[in-house]
Amino acid sequence: MMMKTLLPMNTVKCRRLLWAMIVIAIFVCAISAQNPSPNMMSPARLSLMPIPASVQLQPGRLQITSGFTVATKNFADDRLRAAIARMLRRLEGRTVLTLPADLSNDEAAATLVIQCERAGETIPSLNENESYSLEINDKQARLVAPTVVGALRGLETFLQMLQGDRDGFFMPAIRINDQPRFPWRGLLIDVGRHYEPMEVLKRNLDAMAAVKLNVFHWHLSEDQGFRVESKKFPKLTGLGSDGLFYTQDQVREIIAYARDRGIRVMPEFDIPGHSTSWLVAYPELGSAPGPYKIERGAGIFEPALDPTREQTYKFLDTFLGEMAGLFPDDYLHIGGDENEGKQWDRNPQIQVFMKEKGIKDNHALQAYFNQRILKILQKHHKKMIGWDEILHPDLPTDAVIQSWRGPASLAEAAKKGYNGILSAGYYIDLILPAAEHYQADPIPANTSLSAEEAKHVLGGEATMWGEWVSSETIDSRIWPRTAAIAERLWSPRNINDIEDMYRRLSVISRQLEELGLTHEKNYEMMLRRLAASENSAPLRTLASIIEPVKQYRRYQQRPQTMLSPLTGLVDAARPDSETARRFNAHVNSFLADAPRFALNRSELERTLAEWQTASRALGPMIDQSPALQEARPLANDLSVIATAGLEAMSYLSSGDAPTMEWRQAQLARLDEAAKPKAALEFVVMSSLRKLVIAAGELPQLHSMTPAEWNKRVTMMASPPAAKP
Amino acid sequence: MMMKTLLPMNTVKCRRLLWAMIVIAIFVCAISAQNPSPNMMSPARLSLMPIPASVQLQPGRLQITSGFTVATKNFADDRLRAAIARMLRRLEGRTVLTLPADLSNDEAAATLVIQCERAGETIPSLNENESYSLEINDKQARLVAPTVVGALRGLETFLQMLQGDRDGFFMPAIRINDQPRFPWRGLLIDVGRHYEPMEVLKRNLDAMAAVKLNVFHWHLSEDQGFRVESKKFPKLTGLGSDGLFYTQDQVREIIAYARDRGIRVMPEFDIPGHSTSWLVAYPELGSAPGPYKIERGAGIFEPALDPTREQTYKFLDTFLGEMAGLFPDDYLHIGGDENEGKQWDRNPQIQVFMKEKGIKDNHALQAYFNQRILKILQKHHKKMIGWDEILHPDLPTDAVIQSWRGPASLAEAAKKGYNGILSAGYYIDLILPAAEHYQADPIPANTSLSAEEAKHVLGGEATMWGEWVSSETIDSRIWPRTAAIAERLWSPRNINDIEDMYRRLSVISRQLEELGLTHEKNYEMMLRRLAASENSAPLRTLASIIEPVKQYRRYQQRPQTMLSPLTGLVDAARPDSETARRFNAHVNSFLADAPRFALNRSELERTLAEWQTASRALGPMIDQSPALQEARPLANDLSVIATAGLEAMSYLSSGDAPTMEWRQAQLARLDEAAKPKAALEFVVMSSLRKLVIAAGELPQLHSMTPAEWNKRVTMMASPPAAKP
Repeated sequence: MMMKTLLPMNTVKCRRLLWAMIVIAIFVCAISAQNPSPNMMSPARLSLMPIPASVQLQPGRLQITSGFTVATKNFADDRLRAAIARMLRRLEGRTVLTLPADLSNDEAAATLVIQCERAGETIPSLNENESYSLEINDKQARLVAPTVVGALRGLETFLQMLQGDRDGFFMPAIRINDQPRFPWRGLLIDVGRHYEPMEVLKRNLDAMAAVKLNVFHWHLSEDQGFRVESKKFPKLTGLGSDGLFYTQDQVREIIAYARDRGIRVMPEFDIPGHSTSWLVAYPELGSAPGPYKIERGAGIFEPALDPTREQTYKFLDTFLGEMAGLFPDDYLHIGGDENEGKQWDRNPQIQVFMKEKGIKDNHALQAYFNQRILKILQKHHKKMIGWDEILHPDLPTDAVIQSWRGPASLAEAAKKGYNGILSAGYYIDLILPAAEHYQADPIPANTSLSAEEAKHVLGGEATMWGEWVSSETIDSRIWPRTAAIAERLWSPRNINDIEDMYRRLSVISRQLEELGLTHEKNYEMMLRRLAASENSAPLRTLASIIEPVKQYRRYQQRPQTMLSPLTGLVDAARPDSETARRFNAHVNSFLADAPRFALNRSELERTLAEWQTASRALGPMIDQSPALQEARPLANDLSVIATAGLEAMSYLSSGDAPTMEWRQAQLARLDEAAKPKAALEFVVMSSLRKLVIAAGELPQLHSMTPAEWNKRVTMMASPPAAKP
Repeated sequence: MMMKTLLPMNTVKCRRLLWAMIVIAIFVCAISAQNPSPNMMSPARLSLMPIPASVQLQPGRLQITSGFTVATKNFADDRLRAAIARMLRRLEGRTVLTLPADLSNDEAAATLVIQCERAGETIPSLNENESYSLEINDKQARLVAPTVVGALRGLETFLQMLQGDRDGFFMPAIRINDQPRFPWRGLLIDVGRHYEPMEVLKRNLDAMAAVKLNVFHWHLSEDQGFRVESKKFPKLTGLGSDGLFYTQDQVREIIAYARDRGIRVMPEFDIPGHSTSWLVAYPELGSAPGPYKIERGAGIFEPALDPTREQTYKFLDTFLGEMAGLFPDDYLHIGGDENEGKQWDRNPQIQVFMKEKGIKDNHALQAYFNQRILKILQKHHKKMIGWDEILHPDLPTDAVIQSWRGPASLAEAAKKGYNGILSAGYYIDLILPAAEHYQADPIPANTSLSAEEAKHVLGGEATMWGEWVSSETIDSRIWPRTAAIAERLWSPRNINDIEDMYRRLSVISRQLEELGLTHEKNYEMMLRRLAASENSAPLRTLASIIEPVKQYRRYQQRPQTMLSPLTGLVDAARPDSETARRFNAHVNSFLADAPRFALNRSELERTLAEWQTASRALGPMIDQSPALQEARPLANDLSVIATAGLEAMSYLSSGDAPTMEWRQAQLARLDEAAKPKAALEFVVMSSLRKLVIAAGELPQLHSMTPAEWNKRVTMMASPPAAKP
């Protein structure tokens, strides 16, 4: 049962005692709620994500029937009414109940009363008050928020409260007081490398709102494409976009859509590097003569704007002025990352300029550039934000740092007085499990920052870099893992039970589908296409325990261009396999059940036999479907894995130890199977190694406790180079 | 193997002999190709849909590799180049090959050469030449078409030729000559009752193009909503649309999108009935004083325009003039259906008008109205088309009749000189199997029409009426069944092998997914939501053998409004269950295997046992998910069905006949289970009755041949009232 009562601790020192008292008081209440009295109706498990700052379950439940009505109190505007209508549609979708479409005028009788005081910021901003409280009892739910944005956040919590049993739909009685830990909780979507259609952005904005993210960081220009219409410089998209860009009307549509959901839209125009697509259109801005072609590869490229010519600043003044008018957000992101300055090194004019001005290196030259840009942005009433690299002694402290380097680098900046947000740890394109992202904290428990300094850490952003995502696959790379990051940025620091996070993530993932997200449904579709058959079951079995290789190894192992199809098995396979997680947990419990080895035995044997069967069925399937030919070695590995597992379990069950030869042979085969193929890797290998080693170590079980024996097996099973 | 050589026979009489000779000659070639010589590489089964007019397989195959290139010859325009780019993207998606993005200049070396002569009609029209020929040999594919539209049709055939085996992707060598049987092959989408977002229309236009449909009939106004912006009468959408409508820019976007795919866009504004939403905005046009409210129910409603007032015609002149400018198609559909004239009967002014003008009944009054509208349309250079009801002695023959009554009514109109299209038989909202639609023919073999008269039959249209479809479910109501209708309208009349149609339909259905169609993927998603669990397997088992009730019984059995959620089990379940079709076929072969009863036995027993297991698992699932409570009786029926089947099979296998009591009890239970619940019905019931009766009839098997016995069982198993 989720029963956390937590308040943020990074408040001013003089209030600490008061806070501590409140925390203790509420904690006592929470404990008592955790052990409900017998006459309290037992509530189903809550699956809130992010977990609110304070949650107290109460006795009782509110039935949700077709008589469900909503009333507003004190303040309501179009944004609130539209949000209520959306909430009703989702509630109807889940319950299959036809609910009254009109708001009720009878506050006393309404099922849900929403009490707001004001609209909130006209343009969504960092200063927004997003707090709310939600109280549900037998008769009514009451959502109270100072602003409409707080009410939007509360409506999402409200929807997450829905439960069902034989007596119908209901919400457990509860008291929630909630506000975010950080004011900046973002998702970057890189539409430069692969363009994403409007509906992809819209459904992801819906999903962001569902998990209370509030900044859409729109990475709009890259070496591989310039994606926003400029009326001043139409060649930017005319020559630099392959015709794939957003018109200014579409930009306004996205901004309005995001605002309706309490989400800021911050544009990024990455300069001076990452700018090939600009130079295709305007080579005169470049640091080398050109001509330039839209980049089709992945990596870091040389083209960079020429920071020594006034023409560059004149262009950027006009362009950024136009964009400042288009994007109402306070911030404009100038990128600033990964410019290695090779073009600068080779340009004699630039070298002369540096000498004349006493600019000692490329980093200093970029700092000079940044200061010029800062002035332009200030002129257009925008605050500047950029990646780690923009940090330089000459950078004024009103610039904001987005850190891909880590909390330490962020803390260092904070101590110098810079505001910052964390993205290191939230790079969802690296295909890491949600648990890893979940443990990255913008202000870790062991932070060296004072409370005052910590205020400079505004939050964080998940980054969906676009090298290997299409409109078909992007949802599966963002969700559900980003919901765990959203919780890290919203919920108190000490909400960090990974197992419970995964339990809730699975529920939330399903709910995201009602917003049109395709992370689940495109998986099956892609497997059907690859199988060239509607019976994709054996392929699904394989795909369920493999993942794309991590970090940036995909490109090394399976190079493609930005024009390549993203429809291979590596694209269908998803990060953070739930099947593998469950299998690994079962193996652990099975081994912990030594020397009986009964727990989960039949389930594990069934699973391994299913892998064996699937491996056999994959051969003929691959024969018919050349798109799967690269997966043939994986199909063979699946058989190796299944055989090793079944044989090991047979030894363990019988209590007879295998020979050393068997053990060595199996481990050698598993090592081969563990090597990535087609940029995919099995994520059950450590469990298989454990089973084989456990079988081999059976004789030792007589001379030590099962716990000692298990520890020994686990240690022996960890391959030398791998992380635990 | 698909090896049909067929030419349309409805040509002028003097040419018949020539045709007959050609047909015979080609048929001989086809027969020889059907029995390929041993040195001809055996081609995989073709899955073309619609089947071309003439297909001749050849020895050899063209490999499809990453070196695939396309060259154009004689004529190419932007539309053709865009179509080639789309084709390449789909080919890449299926093959996971990165193909060159640019056209080749080397005609001799290109893998595919496309030779066109001209652009085709500027505005897609009935006069379009859609013919093409496609020749594929070991070295090259050559697509020849007089117009770009013909080339578009040929490119779809080309994509359907793709096959794969151990040696990679390839296309079998072939010669295809193709042209449509009918020039009007449409799909009506009713966006009046439920609005459909732009992306739904776009992906359906893509799917239409994939199966060579060429008319998007856009049913834009209904009692329940007015869906297109009028700048002359903004209140039409301002008050009559709930804010759900297409702007004129969006209309132009759809028209351009359709034109790019060789598809006409014909708007329908249904008058004088079906006009409540107009009258919400402009009650002064109505035949009763109003005020009017947007209709939320399903059915036939009374509101109708007042045909006796000049104001009505003035309004329509302005409105239809505006729409005539917006929609470039030659035709404008005025509906004209289902006006029962009840408002007219009750309006004294209208009664006086009729008396004065000598108009004897409401049908005549509507004819008067239609003639006035016809003049308005002629003034705006549009041809008029309407439903059956507009047919009246006073109607000029340049009006076109869309028949919901049937081929006989269409033939009658054709004899009077009216052009017509068939929709009877193609009402896909009735949830009938594809086989039924497939057998409906605009000009049946037994037609009474002369060849000259038959030319008045222009084709047909599938009609997706919108009462019970949302953007989540509409694809599953249109596809894949509409592909079978598309084949009926394109391919020669004697292409009518139902089993082979279903074989190909299953392949085409999967290919449609690459266009973003959701008929497959939303099924699983909706079941997950209903199950409130990612393990929806037992629910999927149930859903796979039930279908929504047919015809218009859904509303009677499970009334809802247009504002109700369409997320219930009846919405997730789909027409034309493939699982049931397979089960029924297996039962037939099993019984035909009398007295051995071995064929398919283990498969049938496994299936029935799986139903039993699913039935047990559904109980707890329904307990947790109140949205499934209406499905509880179906879960119980599933157990009844499985038990009856397993017991019957056990008797048949053992050769021991059951008692008469057992037989009567099982049949009574099956009769109960056969009754629809939650507007859903099992579609395996006749097979179950067969099994039970077969068990009961075991003793008769000694005294007759298995064939006689099977006939007896089948006859006894047909419930008295049911169709065979």
